[in-house]
Amino acid sequence: MAKSAEEVHPVKSFGWAARDHSGILSPFSFSRRATGAEDVRFKVLYCGICHTDLHRIKNDWGGSNYPLLPGHEVVGVVTEVGSKVQKFKIGDKVGVGCLVGACHSCDNCANDLENYCPKRVPTYNGTYHDGTTTYGGYSDHMVTNEHFVVRIPENIPLDAAAPLLCAGITTYSPLIYFELGKPGMHVGVVGLGGLGHVGVKFAKALGAKVTLISTSPNKKKEAIEHLGADSFLVSQDSDQMQAAMGTMDGILDTVSAVHPLLPLIGLLKSHGKLIMLGAPDKPLELPVFPLLMGRKLVAGSFTGGLKEAQEMIDFAAKHNITADIEVIPMDYVNTAMERLTKSDVKYRFVIDVANTLKAI
Amino acid sequence: MAKSAEEVHPVKSFGWAARDHSGILSPFSFSRRATGAEDVRFKVLYCGICHTDLHRIKNDWGGSNYPLLPGHEVVGVVTEVGSKVQKFKIGDKVGVGCLVGACHSCDNCANDLENYCPKRVPTYNGTYHDGTTTYGGYSDHMVTNEHFVVRIPENIPLDAAAPLLCAGITTYSPLIYFELGKPGMHVGVVGLGGLGHVGVKFAKALGAKVTLISTSPNKKKEAIEHLGADSFLVSQDSDQMQAAMGTMDGILDTVSAVHPLLPLIGLLKSHGKLIMLGAPDKPLELPVFPLLMGRKLVAGSFTGGLKEAQEMIDFAAKHNITADIEVIPMDYVNTAMERLTKSDVKYRFVIDVANTLKAI
Repeated sequence: MAKSAEEVHPVKSFGWAARDHSGILSPFSFSRRATGAEDVRFKVLYCGICHTDLHRIKNDWGGSNYPLLPGHEVVGVVTEVGSKVQKFKIGDKVGVGCLVGACHSCDNCANDLENYCPKRVPTYNGTYHDGTTTYGGYSDHMVTNEHFVVRIPENIPLDAAAPLLCAGITTYSPLIYFELGKPGMHVGVVGLGGLGHVGVKFAKALGAKVTLISTSPNKKKEAIEHLGADSFLVSQDSDQMQAAMGTMDGILDTVSAVHPLLPLIGLLKSHGKLIMLGAPDKPLELPVFPLLMGRKLVAGSFTGGLKEAQEMIDFAAKHNITADIEVIPMDYVNTAMERLTKSDVKYRFVIDVANTLKAI
Repeated sequence: MAKSAEEVHPVKSFGWAARDHSGILSPFSFSRRATGAEDVRFKVLYCGICHTDLHRIKNDWGGSNYPLLPGHEVVGVVTEVGSKVQKFKIGDKVGVGCLVGACHSCDNCANDLENYCPKRVPTYNGTYHDGTTTYGGYSDHMVTNEHFVVRIPENIPLDAAAPLLCAGITTYSPLIYFELGKPGMHVGVVGLGGLGHVGVKFAKALGAKVTLISTSPNKKKEAIEHLGADSFLVSQDSDQMQAAMGTMDGILDTVSAVHPLLPLIGLLKSHGKLIMLGAPDKPLELPVFPLLMGRKLVAGSFTGGLKEAQEMIDFAAKHNITADIEVIPMDYVNTAMERLTKSDVKYRFVIDVANTLKAI
């Protein structure tokens, strides 16, 4: 049984948390640990709203523990560092993504893949090494082991950088690992939302040709003119889909609803790779014959390790990649969640925590 | 409409063919083309019975055209070569696998992957470049473009080599491409049949640790003592399966019946690879979350290219790898098909064509 942070932690903190699976968020007082030797304490400036937050506050996947204080796209400014902290000093701009802990002894940790460590600690709704529940970035400040903190480059706007810490790394990492993000590759991106829109930007900046695949014909202009996609496919248009069969080296599939894979597998060239980034709550239908006949693969990818997260944000800064955001005040968060349910945002809500979160 | 071989071809041939989807095979007279400049004509000595033959004669997958003369695990001795043939001479021992033609101009052909060429011509039930139907190795002789002929090394028994031309390359190729067949890898092989038993042998010879996964506990002794598997898992034993979770780098799944993938994905380590070699006729259920959480993949693989087929058979000869076979006379083929339906063979039937096929 996880101890509450209040029992063992001395530093008062506050934020907005969900209290039950209604998912309604409301002001919440709690506490955070004292700054350990390897810890960085930082004032939260901005926090993105990831679709995962919406699933977690409503317990869509099971396993949500309340009070649940979400937020894993967090940027802020360092206010205190522990005695052994090497990478950061007071005043530094920093960010925290989906992870705040790992075992540091398994093969994945040894390969900078803390995201696949079986003992990884999620930024919220997790159990930290001291037995307490982790609370995320919808809060006034955080305290995090420096290993899990990334440096935000100077030239990137902090609000629009926040979503890169989840949506950015989630799309960047598979583009690198599966060798899709490079010149000569043709990459499809399915779904134009928080993940999809930064996926297009990263794939383009890495040198690939990019086709956005969407159910909505009216997103074409936006995808091509604003996001820089080379082409656009309406997934419901069988003529368009047929004409594009066998043309793609890989596809990033950001859709978390149950959907057919067969048309997407058909879009791939031989040896093509369909990379699932969303997690439908039911199994999908996998047609095996088309995989065999083209040595195609369907894989999953889940965020990235800390070394790669730093590479991603440095790359983003160099190539002027940010998320397209709508900045909102803290007390708008429940409305934002309703709108997110309807995909009514271009493309990520970011909470202006520092200016709008008021102590209770 | 494909012209019949009889209309355009001058060389009489005979074999056993199915006439309808009953799948019953019976003697069949037809003809083959004259030996072209790049062709090798060879007397068939042995032909393996692949599970695909069973599906094709019964039209299980659709697309079977009758008369259908199966056989794509063919070995024989060269009797004639065309004027431009460079690699073979009369008297050479040769083999033909699943393919007898390709376009030679696509990316796959340029990369020695004729098996993924969209215009590949299957060894039987295909349409050759001249418009005629292809007939397989359940016949007295074949005539094949030398590009699709492999040399059978001297020291390998011809009867036990025949199944390597399909079952061998089908398991060898993914072990190489997916980087599983090497020291330090732990490879699972699902299903102990024609594919599975040579898959174990190749994976072992390539240096991997091998676990055979089967529904039948009574195959354990055979798998370990005879085939050389390091360990054995009963897929219905949840305790055994649980204990083996997260231990395998890759799995070759040879099962063509509909079956659950979740337990197999669970056996994989992070970044592990589940390679499907059988083609269930219905989609399988793909749980996406376990793929994401370990960056795992499910892929298909279909036979191999000709360059790799030659490498495979040379490797097999060097490492004394052959198929375990039951040699049968031609007129036993219908009984053999019935037994194959019940998996009643260890592990491949091979027809002694030269000694038992009688002209009509």
